Amino acid sequence: MCGIIGVSGIADAARLTYLGLYALQHRGQESAGIVAINRDCNARSHRGMGLVSENFDDTALDRLPGDVAVGHTRYSTTGSTVLANAQPCSVNTRLGTLAIAHNGNLTNAVELKRELVEKGAIFTTSSDTEVLVHLIARSDAETVEGQIRDALEQVEGAYSLVIAAGRTLYAVVDSRGFRPLVLGRLGSGMVIASETCALDLVGASMACELEPGDFVRIDDGRVTELPRLSPRPVSRCVFELVYFARPDSTVFGESVDRVRRELGRELARERPATGDVVFSVPDSSNAMALGFSEVSGIKLEHGLIRNHYVGRTFINPTQNHRVEKVKIKFNPVRDVIHGKSCVVVDDSLVRGNTSRSLVRMIRAAGAREVHLRLASPPITGPCHYGIDTPTREELIAASHSIEEIREFLGVDSLGYLSLDGMLRAAGSHTGFCHACFSGQYPTPVPEDLVQLRHASPLIATPA
Amino acid sequence: MCGIIGVSGIADAARLTYLGLYALQHRGQESAGIVAINRDCNARSHRGMGLVSENFDDTALDRLPGDVAVGHTRYSTTGSTVLANAQPCSVNTRLGTLAIAHNGNLTNAVELKRELVEKGAIFTTSSDTEVLVHLIARSDAETVEGQIRDALEQVEGAYSLVIAAGRTLYAVVDSRGFRPLVLGRLGSGMVIASETCALDLVGASMACELEPGDFVRIDDGRVTELPRLSPRPVSRCVFELVYFARPDSTVFGESVDRVRRELGRELARERPATGDVVFSVPDSSNAMALGFSEVSGIKLEHGLIRNHYVGRTFINPTQNHRVEKVKIKFNPVRDVIHGKSCVVVDDSLVRGNTSRSLVRMIRAAGAREVHLRLASPPITGPCHYGIDTPTREELIAASHSIEEIREFLGVDSLGYLSLDGMLRAAGSHTGFCHACFSGQYPTPVPEDLVQLRHASPLIATPA
Amino acid sequence: MCGIIGVSGIADAARLTYLGLYALQHRGQESAGIVAINRDCNARSHRGMGLVSENFDDTALDRLPGDVAVGHTRYSTTGSTVLANAQPCSVNTRLGTLAIAHNGNLTNAVELKRELVEKGAIFTTSSDTEVLVHLIARSDAETVEGQIRDALEQVEGAYSLVIAAGRTLYAVVDSRGFRPLVLGRLGSGMVIASETCALDLVGASMACELEPGDFVRIDDGRVTELPRLSPRPVSRCVFELVYFARPDSTVFGESVDRVRRELGRELARERPATGDVVFSVPDSSNAMALGFSEVSGIKLEHGLIRNHYVGRTFINPTQNHRVEKVKIKFNPVRDVIHGKSCVVVDDSLVRGNTSRSLVRMIRAAGAREVHLRLASPPITGPCHYGIDTPTREELIAASHSIEEIREFLGVDSLGYLSLDGMLRAAGSHTGFCHACFSGQYPTPVPEDLVQLRHASPLIATPA
Amino acid sequence: MCGIIGVSGIADAARLTYLGLYALQHRGQESAGIVAINRDCNARSHRGMGLVSENFDDTALDRLPGDVAVGHTRYSTTGSTVLANAQPCSVNTRLGTLAIAHNGNLTNAVELKRELVEKGAIFTTSSDTEVLVHLIARSDAETVEGQIRDALEQVEGAYSLVIAAGRTLYAVVDSRGFRPLVLGRLGSGMVIASETCALDLVGASMACELEPGDFVRIDDGRVTELPRLSPRPVSRCVFELVYFARPDSTVFGESVDRVRRELGRELARERPATGDVVFSVPDSSNAMALGFSEVSGIKLEHGLIRNHYVGRTFINPTQNHRVEKVKIKFNPVRDVIHGKSCVVVDDSLVRGNTSRSLVRMIRAAGAREVHLRLASPPITGPCHYGIDTPTREELIAASHSIEEIREFLGVDSLGYLSLDGMLRAAGSHTGFCHACFSGQYPTPVPEDLVQLRHASPLIATPA
Repeated sequence: MCGIIGVSGIADAARLTYLGLYALQHRGQESAGIVAINRDCNARSHRGMGLVSENFDDTALDRLPGDVAVGHTRYSTTGSTVLANAQPCSVNTRLGTLAIAHNGNLTNAVELKRELVEKGAIFTTSSDTEVLVHLIARSDAETVEGQIRDALEQVEGAYSLVIAAGRTLYAVVDSRGFRPLVLGRLGSGMVIASETCALDLVGASMACELEPGDFVRIDDGRVTELPRLSPRPVSRCVFELVYFARPDSTVFGESVDRVRRELGRELARERPATGDVVFSVPDSSNAMALGFSEVSGIKLEHGLIRNHYVGRTFINPTQNHRVEKVKIKFNPVRDVIHGKSCVVVDDSLVRGNTSRSLVRMIRAAGAREVHLRLASPPITGPCHYGIDTPTREELIAASHSIEEIREFLGVDSLGYLSLDGMLRAAGSHTGFCHACFSGQYPTPVPEDLVQLRHASPLIATPA
Repeated sequence: MCGIIGVSGIADAARLTYLGLYALQHRGQESAGIVAINRDCNARSHRGMGLVSENFDDTALDRLPGDVAVGHTRYSTTGSTVLANAQPCSVNTRLGTLAIAHNGNLTNAVELKRELVEKGAIFTTSSDTEVLVHLIARSDAETVEGQIRDALEQVEGAYSLVIAAGRTLYAVVDSRGFRPLVLGRLGSGMVIASETCALDLVGASMACELEPGDFVRIDDGRVTELPRLSPRPVSRCVFELVYFARPDSTVFGESVDRVRRELGRELARERPATGDVVFSVPDSSNAMALGFSEVSGIKLEHGLIRNHYVGRTFINPTQNHRVEKVKIKFNPVRDVIHGKSCVVVDDSLVRGNTSRSLVRMIRAAGAREVHLRLASPPITGPCHYGIDTPTREELIAASHSIEEIREFLGVDSLGYLSLDGMLRAAGSHTGFCHACFSGQYPTPVPEDLVQLRHASPLIATPA
Repeated sequence: MCGIIGVSGIADAARLTYLGLYALQHRGQESAGIVAINRDCNARSHRGMGLVSENFDDTALDRLPGDVAVGHTRYSTTGSTVLANAQPCSVNTRLGTLAIAHNGNLTNAVELKRELVEKGAIFTTSSDTEVLVHLIARSDAETVEGQIRDALEQVEGAYSLVIAAGRTLYAVVDSRGFRPLVLGRLGSGMVIASETCALDLVGASMACELEPGDFVRIDDGRVTELPRLSPRPVSRCVFELVYFARPDSTVFGESVDRVRRELGRELARERPATGDVVFSVPDSSNAMALGFSEVSGIKLEHGLIRNHYVGRTFINPTQNHRVEKVKIKFNPVRDVIHGKSCVVVDDSLVRGNTSRSLVRMIRAAGAREVHLRLASPPITGPCHYGIDTPTREELIAASHSIEEIREFLGVDSLGYLSLDGMLRAAGSHTGFCHACFSGQYPTPVPEDLVQLRHASPLIATPA
Repeated sequence: MCGIIGVSGIADAARLTYLGLYALQHRGQESAGIVAINRDCNARSHRGMGLVSENFDDTALDRLPGDVAVGHTRYSTTGSTVLANAQPCSVNTRLGTLAIAHNGNLTNAVELKRELVEKGAIFTTSSDTEVLVHLIARSDAETVEGQIRDALEQVEGAYSLVIAAGRTLYAVVDSRGFRPLVLGRLGSGMVIASETCALDLVGASMACELEPGDFVRIDDGRVTELPRLSPRPVSRCVFELVYFARPDSTVFGESVDRVRRELGRELARERPATGDVVFSVPDSSNAMALGFSEVSGIKLEHGLIRNHYVGRTFINPTQNHRVEKVKIKFNPVRDVIHGKSCVVVDDSLVRGNTSRSLVRMIRAAGAREVHLRLASPPITGPCHYGIDTPTREELIAASHSIEEIREFLGVDSLGYLSLDGMLRAAGSHTGFCHACFSGQYPTPVPEDLVQLRHASPLIATPA
């Protein structure tokens, strides 16, 4: 879960990148970084832990001159939470300085790292992106493009990349197309971004979405298509549409908002419920609740209010006044709920703890019945392609029946959308990755990947 | 615009207050403070600029021991934006140490201050609350209760107050009842708060709402009703219901969410519109759009997505990429809007600039028509009772006809809810203050109040 | 222990004040503040906890425009360590805004505070300066000058004051003249400062030192002598010369460095020692060791090296590696000390703990003998006039004989300079306060002063 | 200019390292870092820009458990001022995790870096230490010891190193012995440090100083001597004794304080001066002035007072009050200087600007004559072995005659100590590096070293 941006051929590229990162903040709040390259090919970077708004001010942006820039906002996947892991990753190589922003996750990183370390490579972060960087730097190819291609031939997994080599930008999406990447035009320059909402904010007009395997080069705003990567069966991440992307974005050719409303409608058809009111868990399932209300005819209400001032660090009162974090974030509207049979629509269910607390809170506000409807199937396996799902042990649906989950949550009825229903709503695309729901992983998943995620000594980063 | 909390008879009162302030954060983000009093009557305080979550950590809360506490979260009304103005305000007086949290605004503060200064009083802040403090301290009454009463007899305007005098808490609401204040019970202790959503979060059960003129004393969680203040015509602030309070609160005996949906319904009845879709400006007008859709039969959609990661400081890109702040905050959903006749519901219109930008943005996303409906009447005058409205000059409706405003905003049609419609929706209460809409100020408004708000040299605070 | 500055009639007065405070940093490191007043009589202030360099940057100074300024650097005497106590103290009074910087301590503050509180005055700090402010504000005098005079007639104790009233500066020294205050000329403007080293740094030339009871008014750099305060016997603080002032300053008409060398010479005459080497405890007794060496003929060496990077917060290693703070600050030079009989010269002895540790350290470095010589008499009582000495209980010489102290310190011999010797070295002035050495307090010292210093509930500041 | 520490076999090694770094703070104030390794071989690190006291608090030290630690305090030599360059440098290699602290400078780093980059190595810092790390990681040797030896055989220049490989510490000094490194014993553990003053502070007793070429291994406090590096002519840095080391340290077998006093005596013999008083530029030339006074018989005084509160960032007042930074740091004692012929002793002269300002300041304080005596020869070339001297262009003695310098400084006479005189005072050691004075560089100095120091694009670090 990361957001990436590239800018070419636009004055004050760092400021534009900053603006674009603002729109991608939902893709990662752990760290934010920008590398800018000026006319003399000098690269400067600024990176820090936390939000874009916390890391950049006028002074910081003034120190990033240039008309080429790469930006990144990160939510940890592999690699622990330390500044060293913040991207873009900047390195000096034989062919010059590279700045790399990576969205996705490489599934053979542990194996490749082991080989590289044997050959004397040194690693300073626990990020899988560093593996890619080493492969690029060690390639004998005569051009950066050749080096990148060499490296990409060796890696497996999910990657949407923006790479600045000197003043040239490269953008590439793996052949399975797990993660989105779009190209926009702004004046005579180009903007690359994870989602179209970033293009909207910077005022760029959408040029095209990169298809799986697409590899382009951009010099001073001029795009050159490079030979595509070797083809693989397409497997777009369906979770981008279900949960991850912003509803105002267009992802994989689909309006996210439209897909979500359709997921709500499918859910109402597949798992109908009788109730007095239907409401969402704001904001992620708003569109789904709307779709559910539309098809079911049950009246839409706002049964839960979200407190948007919740910071990342919350200090719990002492033992006597222990408060679940979910209570800080959501409060029920008693007037809507009291005495009613409530249909609650949510996008998905991971561990189940938050939903359980929400249900308890809704009941305490006087609900007569609570019916939970989920606009995606049971999550039974971890994502190995860049979404920070917990291990199988923590996934409630990996080891419990739906009836057991219902009982755990304390709801009167529980309904999940089917895999088919979800895919139908997600659009006409034939190629989706739905491994976390179906267990059908589109790439080999090495046994020790789990170890990678658990920070084995070999790859532990001393920070 | 402030949120206030009092806690009595509950261990770790500061931590509970912290939690309650979290729920009242929407009432003021400029500063936050807590004063806690321990068994030995020692008062300690911590205050700072910014959000509750930014100002308090475990260390800060550990330094605030005691089972009595007063908390405040502030949005500047009178008084400039400096730490010295942050509340609660703590002072040593003849009868001991007082900590005061004030929500509201005194309309005769300038006059009283002038008199007090003549008598040798010194002022260290520009807050009107300091006037109150001086009046209390100078009273000859033999008890703190008597001193408070003496002081309140001299002030005019809006005040909901929580005052700690030693280990005793006092809570009082002015006789017109401009601002809300509720009492909740938690075990053997009591919690006072501006809104019920704070009681919900700390787990207190609502005991009662203070009526206009109510004055109570709380010792170790035991409430004593004191003689009420001299009666005045009730004038509850209708804007609390329209915009300011959180929708999950019950204010002036009414569910805020229910009132807002009813405002939307009234609006649809009074100012119908034809359109393909209706949507809100999230989140403040969500309930109103829901009510409008219900009555009008026009399909509810999410046409605007709000970015909740917008920090308070935003650095605008340079001249070339100037971006309106509203664009950072909202993005249209093209798929919902494109080619459609859109009915946009908002709660109110102040200067008009934000709405104008939003309309432009909606049109750029392809809207065929834009019809704006406002769930309150034209705002034609400033609030003198604690809400931070701009001066008359900046209020678009103070000097422009509705047709002129429509033209300025660039909408196809514009409809405001009538005063009667708003009051009907706001509930059966007869006594509302609607001065900002009607110009009927319930108290005398001295000429120089405006000067107070503009920081005349006399009251300028050297910080 | 505080440093104060005033500037009149010089552009960018705040920046000049900042510079002057830099030179007075040794007089107080707890907080620093500046108030600047511009041509329109607008006063702005900036204050913070910690060093001058930590509190002011370009941005902060840019926000303090004007050609009149008052600055203060503070070491807590009365009043706890909180920002609210930081000076200059700014208040709005009947005759306008005042900014006050106070060096000294009022001995009847508790009594006056009690009376003021009875009359309804409110106190927001625990500083005795606030008492003065109230007295000024409550005076019926028709001019600020009159008000200040009224107030000063009521207070007892030590005060050197710089007060800005609008654009006029007042400088005044109490009639006993406890604390120094000098006037310097810079171009057509004037600079007032606690010590001449601040004049040196800002490039001002010394005009005169204020004599006890002097009261002057400065408008746009023009000085007017006002009638002097009622005369009292002069009692200049001798400790300013012994320890507190910077050696490059001229204080009470004497070169501090010269006085200190003379103290060392007197000490060598009065309390001779036989030894191989003599050295100081750097830097406070450097000049005294020089004088001692000169008279005794014993070779001067550098036996102790001071680490100037010691921050204010030092984290002690765990139990196993417990380290005395003095070890962080000083390290012996083994080559100088080993096998030698060492004469160590220090300025004074307060609790004795630091000296004891130093002696142990010197012995561990191989000293054959250690002879401690102190260039002032035994300290037997607290200072009530602004120097932060501990209570009588903690003063080792208040309750122990010189032989007991010698044993406690673990030195082979111990010699204190006599009161007469000290006064002889301090110069021809007849009027010194030497109360901490002699117990002869020049003012009545109320019984409850000690309570004031121990923060009785009455005056506890809730911060 | 760096300080390094290693600890083995002592509980809470990080806290001991912290303490040791405190004592080495004079060797570098740009950044500070500690890596600690616990019983399970897990390494954790904390590094930051600024002083030791600014970077470490209890929380930070608690996060560094273990009985093995490596610490570093850095003053930039090669490599720009960024956090990425802060040491210790931690990396994962084939044989495990390494933490390296380096004092010195490699003279063939540019050449080696070029070769490594050609082979695909990636560099993330501009520090020459990273070159060493790559060489270690790429060695085929079967043990870490072998790898380190392989790497050291390829590098030229100055290095005193402490390396932690898992729980084993290695300490090594290059065969020319440029920089000091000492071993101390504390209980059953060992402490390695740049200077003995660090051993003193942590309470360790000096075990031995590492001789040029020494290479030792320490496991749980047990030291094993490893085969020495190939011998080279010894060239101890004489500047460590003249200026850099702390006077309370023993360096290269000599008491620094004693050497400095001897330098002062030699100076008085070689370059006598007639004057009324002699004084130092505190604190670096204190001992030299003492020696000068001793031999010359001229009375020692304190003519300059140093303000120890000068922070690293100083804001200069505006154009009108421009103040030289030297004035903030030093102030003359008028009483000592006025009307006198002053002999000023300083340790060395680099650019000449500071001395020139000092002289002007001394004259302004009324000196009749100023005679400057320098306790080292003219500096005519840059140091390539780790001391941050400026380029030749900036060294005043590289292009000016002594008479020209005298004139520039504005002194009545100027005397430098001769090379022979300096070496005589520095002790019986035959092998000193005095390249900056004599131009006799003990290693080949590649042409492009200068470019390395000027950050050529090839090695520019994008931070």
